[in-house]
Amino acid sequence: MERRDFLKAAGAAGATVLAGRIHAETGHQQFDAPRLRTKPGSALKAKPMETVRAALIGVGARGPTHLSSLLNLEGTEIIAVCDLYQDWADRAAKMCTDKGRKKPDIYTGGKDDYKRMLDRDDIDIVIISTPWEDHVPMAVAAMQRGKHAFIEVPAATTLEECWQLVEVSERTGMHCMMLENVNYGRDELMVLNMCRNGLFGDLLHAEAAYIHDLRGQMHEVERGTGSWRTYQYAKRNGNLYPTHGLGPVAQYMNVNRGDRFDTLVSMSSPSKMRALYARENFPADHKWRKLRFQAGDLNTTLIQTLLGRTIMVQWDEQLPRPYTRHNLIQGTRGVWAGFPNRVTVEGVSKSTESWTQGGDLKEWYDKHDHPMWKTIGELAQKVGGHGGMDFAMMWRIVTCLRSGEELDQDVYDAAAWSAVFPLSEWSVNRRGAAVEVPDFTRGLWKTREPLGIVG
Amino acid sequence: MERRDFLKAAGAAGATVLAGRIHAETGHQQFDAPRLRTKPGSALKAKPMETVRAALIGVGARGPTHLSSLLNLEGTEIIAVCDLYQDWADRAAKMCTDKGRKKPDIYTGGKDDYKRMLDRDDIDIVIISTPWEDHVPMAVAAMQRGKHAFIEVPAATTLEECWQLVEVSERTGMHCMMLENVNYGRDELMVLNMCRNGLFGDLLHAEAAYIHDLRGQMHEVERGTGSWRTYQYAKRNGNLYPTHGLGPVAQYMNVNRGDRFDTLVSMSSPSKMRALYARENFPADHKWRKLRFQAGDLNTTLIQTLLGRTIMVQWDEQLPRPYTRHNLIQGTRGVWAGFPNRVTVEGVSKSTESWTQGGDLKEWYDKHDHPMWKTIGELAQKVGGHGGMDFAMMWRIVTCLRSGEELDQDVYDAAAWSAVFPLSEWSVNRRGAAVEVPDFTRGLWKTREPLGIVG
Repeated sequence: MERRDFLKAAGAAGATVLAGRIHAETGHQQFDAPRLRTKPGSALKAKPMETVRAALIGVGARGPTHLSSLLNLEGTEIIAVCDLYQDWADRAAKMCTDKGRKKPDIYTGGKDDYKRMLDRDDIDIVIISTPWEDHVPMAVAAMQRGKHAFIEVPAATTLEECWQLVEVSERTGMHCMMLENVNYGRDELMVLNMCRNGLFGDLLHAEAAYIHDLRGQMHEVERGTGSWRTYQYAKRNGNLYPTHGLGPVAQYMNVNRGDRFDTLVSMSSPSKMRALYARENFPADHKWRKLRFQAGDLNTTLIQTLLGRTIMVQWDEQLPRPYTRHNLIQGTRGVWAGFPNRVTVEGVSKSTESWTQGGDLKEWYDKHDHPMWKTIGELAQKVGGHGGMDFAMMWRIVTCLRSGEELDQDVYDAAAWSAVFPLSEWSVNRRGAAVEVPDFTRGLWKTREPLGIVG
Repeated sequence: MERRDFLKAAGAAGATVLAGRIHAETGHQQFDAPRLRTKPGSALKAKPMETVRAALIGVGARGPTHLSSLLNLEGTEIIAVCDLYQDWADRAAKMCTDKGRKKPDIYTGGKDDYKRMLDRDDIDIVIISTPWEDHVPMAVAAMQRGKHAFIEVPAATTLEECWQLVEVSERTGMHCMMLENVNYGRDELMVLNMCRNGLFGDLLHAEAAYIHDLRGQMHEVERGTGSWRTYQYAKRNGNLYPTHGLGPVAQYMNVNRGDRFDTLVSMSSPSKMRALYARENFPADHKWRKLRFQAGDLNTTLIQTLLGRTIMVQWDEQLPRPYTRHNLIQGTRGVWAGFPNRVTVEGVSKSTESWTQGGDLKEWYDKHDHPMWKTIGELAQKVGGHGGMDFAMMWRIVTCLRSGEELDQDVYDAAAWSAVFPLSEWSVNRRGAAVEVPDFTRGLWKTREPLGIVG
């Protein structure tokens, strides 16, 4: 009745090779899970530390924002920074001294020099803001050397890598958190607060997206995000960047804490835009003209949770269209949607036949702003970083590390949210066939309490 | 390698019982197609008729609008009306005489009296505005008696019924058109015009919906839409009403005329609201309190076409939320979205980082309004019916019938658009498993020309 189905690598270095099979009754693909010898939940807590001694790998594009947040927080030390490029490392060091901090040690000795930095014994946490395919090797190296790993999004790009993060974190007892900053946006925190207070009733459906016209990054030809991410569009086809939209929605819905992702289906539109943009913007012999782009311009993924809730997650980094992360949560009593923000709640709004939006949202913010945002929102906006969400995230990380509290996002969240990338890729390659999402918590989701109101 | 999989009827009279199987390689469900002895395309044209002699079955809720449109058109005669309720039939007759028309004959003799009406030989077309499960038997009876059938949405609610409409239409040479009025809305016609003029570049992705809080219909306890549709929510779980959003989008994308629906996946949220509404609005012994509602409150369906384009279609008739049909079409050069209307096009808009909307759309309407709307829009808005779309549709139908032109929507469109209902139901029952959409045209889609700019 069943057939072993070893997956072909989808033309790519990063593609999934775990064994799996299509269930003959349901038509769902099931991937084998590795048998881990570690205990679920064994790395959720760490000893409190008075000072958080940090090192950063990658301080070119995204790293400086994290550095800036750390420099604006008490109880932090910047021990070292590592980058392939001397000038970016120097710039980071100067950010520290400009703030009256000690100059961090600099590591710029090439691709593997980060390991030399990680061999030091005066580092507590490592912040990894490097190209996607370097995330997991670097995080693993950090945890193996007794450092907590904080990784940019997506934490991993294959199922194997997702499992590897879980295994290494549990085995070493080190935190492995993905730096999903959007969970700390003012709006997202407020909506989380509203969900927890039951304002929307029973939650039923959510929508998330990363729709962001990033074609311009292709002009970063030699270094910077476009210089490596452009190759991803030629290698992979699916939802390549799901977590900014999905992370907040997963927390609204208590994913991994009372519910979990169950099945996933995904479809990508044709891939037209990257090739078109290359033709219109680069000469015939340019390296971008030689790529055969695979990534469908717009991907739509559906996820159903074990409680039957549905989540739509879209991805589109190339089409001409205004930015949106959707940020929609629908319950039995009402709905919030973002971009632009709008809300309607039965018994609260005058009518649910129209939205409350624009200036009329002021009283909603007054009433429902998240307690954490009330505490640090002003400072966060001053320090900046995507409207303050970057600082708010780092404030929360440092607060938890210093007090010994659990982090708000753990390795299971990093794995489940990131796994949407390779799972969607599998489904897209089979024109929408359904695939089961692994339970990275191995049952822990059933007993874990919902995330406390953060902060 | 493959397994015969006779589908269980999904607890319902209307559910699909066609044989099918899950393909072991793709995980897709494939349903058997009946072997028709008729020729694809054999009922697309009919002889011109100087006067369109019409009869109506069902003049309670939706029928009167169609009657009003007919009464405002030259070259029409209302021969007869049929309804279960004498007062509704009388009201329809009075509408005719009030307009100075001849009083139509009235048929109110019970469930099967429509057949007596259809036995007459002075009727050319029959307009069917009855509960969903009566659509196909009535349309089949009409075509078998040499009348063109015009059916309210959805035309059919099972795959078998979809095939039956195709077979009977081809065998009798009679038109079978679903009355998808939204295709004749001013906005939808304009967007169709913009698509045909290439404004959005290569089309890639579309979004459609019927999100309409219709809980109030449950108070139509004895007769009217709620009196029968409420039972549908207890019998079926899927996208129960896909065509208002999907019809326009299918025409933008030339579905059945150069492209066609290929695979479909669907997920429904939990079903909470109808039971909740019944508890809060009806006494304990009320018939609505005894139903066990099955339909998930919000359904999201994805369709991929053979050209790889993607379509998202949502359905939600119960949650507290403002009305929307989404009406989004995204191409390589730009995007239009509805509710509220907004547009951005590269090279035309100042920037594609923001939308043009509200009053700023005026110049877009001035430039892109559909030629047909320019001709009859003013009259259509005067006669009314959903902003004029109802009249515009009937104007177009009568025009085509009188000139002998092909109709804009044919039996293949009726079947393909309606099939989303039972196919989504199949997928929902298997938590999103993929299902292949039958080719109701049996290859005709490859050679048919795109719909001419209508009118």
